[in-house]
Amino acid sequence: MGEFKLIDRLFKHAGGSMKPFTRLGIGDDASIHRPETGMDLVVSTDSSVSGIHWPLDFPLDRAADRAVCSALSDLAAMGAEPVCAWLNVMAEGGDAVEQLGQGATAALRRYDVELAGGDTCRSSVNALSVTVAGQLAAATAMRRDAASADDVLWLCGRVGFHALGLQQWFDGQRDGDFIAHVESISPLLDAGMQLRQAGVLCCIDISDGLLQDAGHICTASEISMDIEVSRLPDWEHLCEQVGEAAALQSVAQGGEDYALLFTAPADLLGDSLHNAGSPNDLFVRIGQCRMMTAERQGAQLYLHGKHIDMEKHGFDHFG
Amino acid sequence: MGEFKLIDRLFKHAGGSMKPFTRLGIGDDASIHRPETGMDLVVSTDSSVSGIHWPLDFPLDRAADRAVCSALSDLAAMGAEPVCAWLNVMAEGGDAVEQLGQGATAALRRYDVELAGGDTCRSSVNALSVTVAGQLAAATAMRRDAASADDVLWLCGRVGFHALGLQQWFDGQRDGDFIAHVESISPLLDAGMQLRQAGVLCCIDISDGLLQDAGHICTASEISMDIEVSRLPDWEHLCEQVGEAAALQSVAQGGEDYALLFTAPADLLGDSLHNAGSPNDLFVRIGQCRMMTAERQGAQLYLHGKHIDMEKHGFDHFG
Repeated sequence: MGEFKLIDRLFKHAGGSMKPFTRLGIGDDASIHRPETGMDLVVSTDSSVSGIHWPLDFPLDRAADRAVCSALSDLAAMGAEPVCAWLNVMAEGGDAVEQLGQGATAALRRYDVELAGGDTCRSSVNALSVTVAGQLAAATAMRRDAASADDVLWLCGRVGFHALGLQQWFDGQRDGDFIAHVESISPLLDAGMQLRQAGVLCCIDISDGLLQDAGHICTASEISMDIEVSRLPDWEHLCEQVGEAAALQSVAQGGEDYALLFTAPADLLGDSLHNAGSPNDLFVRIGQCRMMTAERQGAQLYLHGKHIDMEKHGFDHFG
Repeated sequence: MGEFKLIDRLFKHAGGSMKPFTRLGIGDDASIHRPETGMDLVVSTDSSVSGIHWPLDFPLDRAADRAVCSALSDLAAMGAEPVCAWLNVMAEGGDAVEQLGQGATAALRRYDVELAGGDTCRSSVNALSVTVAGQLAAATAMRRDAASADDVLWLCGRVGFHALGLQQWFDGQRDGDFIAHVESISPLLDAGMQLRQAGVLCCIDISDGLLQDAGHICTASEISMDIEVSRLPDWEHLCEQVGEAAALQSVAQGGEDYALLFTAPADLLGDSLHNAGSPNDLFVRIGQCRMMTAERQGAQLYLHGKHIDMEKHGFDHFG
């Protein structure tokens, strides 16, 4: 089958519903969009490569689903409503294109994101790049550089579970406790929009480990922060399953959990959001922002009040 | 060097100048944009993979420059002013990231396109995906589906030169007559904007060979068209260099020339645009649109008035 017929069948009208934002979708040299007045547009793009972002024996449709959800998580972190996506599918052959296309479009349908464009091409390594666009009221996007030194630090979602799941996958424990966190990602889009509408200014998604991503907020906002690890959702469960040291490592440095880390003045949220989310998306206070000083830089972890000294880096592709 | 420092050094402020369209560029989970009222946004994305889109012995910086220019050509075909770009760099290692990054950002600077975001990651195959956004007055984008059966068919730029250059590259003729067309792409951005402003409604860029891309206009606009090959720029030169058969093959089926093929009513342009472009971007009448009938489908090639029967396909990745 020719490339063009394949694209037509796989991708035309295969994502979420058509949006007023998109005036012309797949099929021309470019897609055409009419942004709504008073709205800002938010755009993020990520690549996922076989053997790097997913294990070589991972199903391709699931890998592509994850790739889309990972990109959508960036929109969640800004508090944006997802609108449309563009897919670049690089595949070893027709079967791989189909599987990657099916997985990606399934995720787009699940979150009702229109597929506005993209391309397919041959490659000796299966990979895809996913570009997503969302919208939100002008000047309301949550940003990494908007934390204040007296903000409270909150988390929505779990951290550490993906790293442990990946270990189980490589160990062949396909019925392991944490495998579900490898098999799919749930971008916290509703939570992100709820936070932005509540007035939260600063948020990031945890894609590279709690320590590194918290550090990004610290650097961008010129603050430091103290995080109490025992407050993390299911911390005790993690310790029971793998021991305290491995639990600590997985929450601090394990990536791809796609929880939302955000800050807010103590009086903005109080405990009011504590149980506002779905059972899986609790908002939990996990720490406190601080002034940045010569002695106090970046994010510091504490376990039951005792400082933990850890190297401050997550997974680093070219480290 | 860590991934983040590398990204900072290579990509921050490395593209064209900052645009009012972009409120927050590289460095957060997503870039933030404020579209101008009354303007449409045009978005295109393309992947380029080593060994597929460029020869394995092709310099990586040049390959990345080409990848950016190829994406910008899609904006030229819509008549859009390029505004910003997002880069996904997949690379075998740090050196490859640097070379790909340098080539891509050099092209962005040349056309003053802001680099608004992207990512870098490791891959066993060097590749990049380039997403570009442009803007134009609302509802004025040139489209494939806007040709009329009595429009005149025009070409801006040359076709066939890249295919012959690529053959010379593979033959080791690095001083060949056509090599320059392999080494770089000139997206016809000014010509595209000029055509749109002159009222042209239908345009496509020739990325997959004249026959296939002309066919895309025919299908989308439900017309057919007759093309007189001898009217193509430098047709005689091509024939002298490689003979008529090879010249015909390269113009009809050779890809990646990035000329603009467009249609217009006979009285819209007359011959007025004939010499309006730069010496390299002449607008040349090469044919005539026709009604589509059961007997007359797609694009038909003629040489000195004599019909040429050719298989109607260009390069087809999954054919």
